[in-house]
Amino acid sequence: MPDRFVVGVDLGGTKILALVVDKQFAVVGRAKKSTKAQEGVAHVHDRIVAAVIEACRGAGLDPKALAGVGVGSPGPLDPATGVIIDSPNLGWHNYPLREKLQQALGVPVAVDNDANLGTLSEQRLGAARGKQHVVGIFAGTGIGGGLVLNGQLFYGASGAAGEIGHIVMNPDGPLCGCGNRGCLEAIASRSAIAGEAAVAAVRGHAPHLLAACGGDVTKVRSGDLAEAIQAGDQAIETIVRCAARYIGIAIGSLVNLLSPDCVVLGGGMVEAMEDIFLAEAREALKHHAMPYLAQRVEIMPARLGDDAVALGAALLIAEKR
Amino acid sequence: MPDRFVVGVDLGGTKILALVVDKQFAVVGRAKKSTKAQEGVAHVHDRIVAAVIEACRGAGLDPKALAGVGVGSPGPLDPATGVIIDSPNLGWHNYPLREKLQQALGVPVAVDNDANLGTLSEQRLGAARGKQHVVGIFAGTGIGGGLVLNGQLFYGASGAAGEIGHIVMNPDGPLCGCGNRGCLEAIASRSAIAGEAAVAAVRGHAPHLLAACGGDVTKVRSGDLAEAIQAGDQAIETIVRCAARYIGIAIGSLVNLLSPDCVVLGGGMVEAMEDIFLAEAREALKHHAMPYLAQRVEIMPARLGDDAVALGAALLIAEKR
Repeated sequence: MPDRFVVGVDLGGTKILALVVDKQFAVVGRAKKSTKAQEGVAHVHDRIVAAVIEACRGAGLDPKALAGVGVGSPGPLDPATGVIIDSPNLGWHNYPLREKLQQALGVPVAVDNDANLGTLSEQRLGAARGKQHVVGIFAGTGIGGGLVLNGQLFYGASGAAGEIGHIVMNPDGPLCGCGNRGCLEAIASRSAIAGEAAVAAVRGHAPHLLAACGGDVTKVRSGDLAEAIQAGDQAIETIVRCAARYIGIAIGSLVNLLSPDCVVLGGGMVEAMEDIFLAEAREALKHHAMPYLAQRVEIMPARLGDDAVALGAALLIAEKR
Repeated sequence: MPDRFVVGVDLGGTKILALVVDKQFAVVGRAKKSTKAQEGVAHVHDRIVAAVIEACRGAGLDPKALAGVGVGSPGPLDPATGVIIDSPNLGWHNYPLREKLQQALGVPVAVDNDANLGTLSEQRLGAARGKQHVVGIFAGTGIGGGLVLNGQLFYGASGAAGEIGHIVMNPDGPLCGCGNRGCLEAIASRSAIAGEAAVAAVRGHAPHLLAACGGDVTKVRSGDLAEAIQAGDQAIETIVRCAARYIGIAIGSLVNLLSPDCVVLGGGMVEAMEDIFLAEAREALKHHAMPYLAQRVEIMPARLGDDAVALGAALLIAEKR
């Protein structure tokens, strides 16, 4: 039955991924497009619609027959109305994404924060399957987070709970993109690491990193960091380990506060350097979580990779039916 | 009808308070006893039973006719079984409090963490009435915390979620009673303040505090701190304001993480110096919470004072019926 099919879309700063899934959440169609946010909101909207149509065509489906389309977007956004409040990555401000897509596609649309949906899919289908209280942390350009509490995504009063990247690690620490100081994201994201790596490079301590990223450390990718560490850039390893340790300290606070049974660590940096991130986070947890709560939690690597957000977006529709 | 009456007990490190409440949560009987934890667990048990009986007698009730008895205790404890896992204040270890009291009293007993119950009563009957997502923070000898999420106490995987006093404020900060470093409690509790105040006293910067607490700063009470500040001990005001600011920074993290609609600030220190604690916490929140989430939250002083935990304990029974 066609109404069993759902499309999940991951709307990222650089790419749009659309997946068609069946009732068992097997992927039966997919399409990928560049976001090209600089071309403006109308163009991005058109590319989302085109990605949905292309993914459906690949699965031999009429988009009008979909049960709905879920979209994971950078936030903050209002999941109740599907309005993107403010997205620096996309350059959007109070954009009614759900309404616009519903008009264009003629099927129900739901919108949620990308990190929320990554956490939801890991809890329903991935690393934290069957766990009731799950914290998702996704470390890449920024640090995204999501909370599944009592088996359900937790939204709080604003709809935007779960901003794990903005836990305060040091009240007088480095300036964060959010305007405050010392947030986890300002200390442990890839952007923060790039800043420290640039200093190391100026000192001549990161020759392999400079080679890997073509001389411009501000454009460093997670894979470049992994490569430089592998090749022997000791300073880069120290910087990355310190960032991973801070993520572990933040997990300590989260464990003391929420007593989750699983923390899922994902995102580009964790995928590229899983061993370092898991080892440092698990070690830091020993020193910053209370033993009675720490013994009930596991830190697990994310399993769903690049499909996590789109699968979570599909779940959003599937579970609303 | 007698089965409408419930007793709530606040089992503290220094005193036991028992309240009899009617269906409308009006207090119709009360009794107070010293805990005398040093006399051992059996003696404390007997004094809890005696307090319940005395409070019932005051209300003209037969304790056997109660709907049940709720108890708020220092943790960590397992609210599902009513076993006190480990209470440094009481010196208890794996003590089956619920089972023992049920045998002695012959009515249903429920046990929960004292800070959880303080948060619950403030959300049901006090400062945060009608709010869905409430964080309770109680600053005294230690710093206790509780979470009401989606209108219900949140327990997490271990049953012991809500340890707000053990959010990590500085990974290399002062040693905490929990064995880790830099917890909020190690920086902003009355015990932490007493340590700093002792140094100020040695320097001759706290003459009024020394007078107020009879020369031994380690035994300082919240009222002594308030008195010393009032009398002009500038160093003590600086120390207390800094502690209050750290509580505000922790609230910033909590807002970014949970997006509550209300944070209730209570406990002995806040009662004694409400203006300082509220002003510093609200100011710190401006610098450490994301604006979109901060605009949805209020920081409110607790309203139920010394009755908060016992009322929460009564709610525990009333809502289970």
